[in-house]
Parts: sequence; structure tokens; C-alpha cells
Amino acid sequence: MQPIDFYFDFASPYGYFMSEKIDALAAKHGRTVIWRPILLFAALRSLGLPPPFEHPVKLEYITADFARSATFLNIDYSLPPGFPALTQHAARAFYLLNGKAPSAAVPFAQTVLRGYFRDGRDISNIDVIAHMVGDHTASLGSTAKVCDLLKGDEAKAMLQAAITDAVQKKVFGSPFVVVDGEGFFGVDRLPQLAARLAGTKA
Amino acid sequence: MQPIDFYFDFASPYGYFMSEKIDALAAKHGRTVIWRPILLFAALRSLGLPPPFEHPVKLEYITADFARSATFLNIDYSLPPGFPALTQHAARAFYLLNGKAPSAAVPFAQTVLRGYFRDGRDISNIDVIAHMVGDHTASLGSTAKVCDLLKGDEAKAMLQAAITDAVQKKVFGSPFVVVDGEGFFGVDRLPQLAARLAGTKA
Repeated sequence: MQPIDFYFDFASPYGYFMSEKIDALAAKHGRTVIWRPILLFAALRSLGLPPPFEHPVKLEYITADFARSATFLNIDYSLPPGFPALTQHAARAFYLLNGKAPSAAVPFAQTVLRGYFRDGRDISNIDVIAHMVGDHTASLGSTAKVCDLLKGDEAKAMLQAAITDAVQKKVFGSPFVVVDGEGFFGVDRLPQLAARLAGTKA
Repeated sequence: MQPIDFYFDFASPYGYFMSEKIDALAAKHGRTVIWRPILLFAALRSLGLPPPFEHPVKLEYITADFARSATFLNIDYSLPPGFPALTQHAARAFYLLNGKAPSAAVPFAQTVLRGYFRDGRDISNIDVIAHMVGDHTASLGSTAKVCDLLKGDEAKAMLQAAITDAVQKKVFGSPFVVVDGEGFFGVDRLPQLAARLAGTKA
């Protein structure tokens, strides 16, 4: 069976909620998950779509819905200061790890997401991200070295390739899960995703 | 306990899905439902929001999601020809009935929604709507008389008042359900709505 693709942005609350559920759901049905962080704003721009939730009426609704959905899903969450964070450092770090210390990549991503959405850590800050990398592996070198790598062409190119792939797959939101070519947008598609993985109607 | 407000547009598939679920869910928790059809495009324009699903990438996704969601919810559905229909005649007829033959209003709305989303009836057509009214009550007079009423100032004013109310309540989509002042947008909020009505977490 094919792995499941899990696209998300590190600053997306619904993406965070999905990140707390998708691996267990997939494992239950004998699947693995490929985590694919992107910069949602960049993907939307490439698709010719406007940024999400810009309008005050939608922002007010969605802010309340973030908290309600977290409670419903039994996930620790609070709206971080400075939301939404810039997430290029976190996403680049993920792809660096994915290349050089693959087993650390997903645990690192979870540290970033939980750090941001539980503990209000400033994940826009390159030093915060470099320290989080160091907490998972020494294989990328010192914190200063990791910062250099995060600003380097290799990390930029890997993230850009991930965004290009997402745009080709028509990923227009976070989370966006692809199962056997079929897209599921939003953490509220978890029940349909579960039904699809179970091979029943959905 | 306060009634639940159920805002929808007659051309909204997700609104149709909610219409098949909301009364039974409310009744289970000792609540009644006030059906409030609106013209979603007019409400969005008043709120300063763009029409939904205009972009081809989103339209493609949502069209597949309509069918998937119908299957998941066990509801008969097919995408009607000419989707989305213009819905001012249906909505005006609803409010005329609501004033003059209240017990016929919700059954009429169900006839319109099922006629459109199950049988592909052309609900943009004023004669189709007038006949559907006549199938539920003779109290508005002949089909010709109903057509006159649908073009009249009273029906226009009632629908406009409903849209104005929706805009004040910040209704930015269909379906949009309000429980004790709290908004739930989308049929995918049914589980959270059920939890709220049950008085548990959501």
C-alpha cells in the first residue's frame, strides 16, 4: 500500500491537530505517512489563490474554531503570540534533517508544532529552530552551523522543491492529506479519511 | 432552551446535507430549528467577501468532496445540471409560506432541496418553484398567483430582511448553524454541533 502524503504548514493550527492524529490513524490501517511541510502562503500564491482567513469576519470565526476543534480532538492548544509565525526556518530544517538524519525529521516537526501551539515558542526565530534541531540530533553540527545551513542554498532548494510538488498536487490548504491520489483538506476530514483507509464508504 | 438557527442557500450542497440532519439532531436534544434560507452570494457581497469556490483548483476539489460527503452521510445526491442555481425564487417562496402557511415552509424547503440535489429539477425556474409551493398548500392561490407573489415587493422585502439578519450575524457560508450565539460553519461541524448540544466538550 502506498504511503499517505501529509502536507501542512508549521503555523497552521489545523495542520498541528492533524499532525497529532495522522500517524496513528495510518498505522492502524497498515500505512506510513510522509510528512511534507510547506509554506502555505507561497503555495497559494503559486496557485493564484488568496491567503486564508484574511477577512476579519472569518478570522474571528476561525480563531474560535481553532480552540473548539482542539478541545473536540483532545489536543493541548493555545493561540501562540504573534500568530501566524513565519515558518521557512522550521520547514527548511525539516528537509535538512530528512536528508541527513531522517529518523529525526518527524520528531523534530512534532517538537516545533508542540513548541509553538502548546508552549508559545517563537518558531519564526532561526536560533529557536536551530536549538530544536540540536535537541534531536548532533549530526548537523553546532547551533551556529545549523543556522548557516538554514540560510544556505541547499535548504532553500529542498523547501522550494517541496512547495513546487505541493502546487503540482493542487494543495491549497493545511492540512492536506493525499491517499492514493485522493485529497482530503482539513482536519475535519478525519472521519472520511478513516473511512477511506478502512476501505468502507466515504 | 433557545431554538437553533439554520442558515443555508438552496443551491448549497453542504446546506442540503445539513438540512437532512439538523432537525433530527436538534429534536434529540429537545431543541427546535428555525430554517433561514438566504442568498449566500448577496450575504458575502455585503460582508465584503468573495464568492466561494470560484477558483478552478478549489472547484475541482469541492465537486469531488460534495459526492464523497454525501456518501459519508448516507444522503442521496448528484450534482445538478446548471449548478449553482439562482435561488431567489425558492428563498422568497419560503418566506411567503413562513408568513402565510408556516407549517408548509420547511416541507417546501425540503422539496426544493431534494428536487434539486436528487432529481436535478431546475429550481432557478419560477414556475417550478410555484408548482412546488402548490404541492404543499393552496393557501397562496393559483400557480400564476404564486408567481406574482414571488415577484412582488413583500416577498423581496422578507428575503432581504433575512439576508440583512444573516449579515449581522456574520453568516459567511452555507450551512451556518447558530446555537446559543455560537456559530458552526459547514456540515463537517456536525460532530462538534452534536457534542455542544449534548452539553459535552466540543
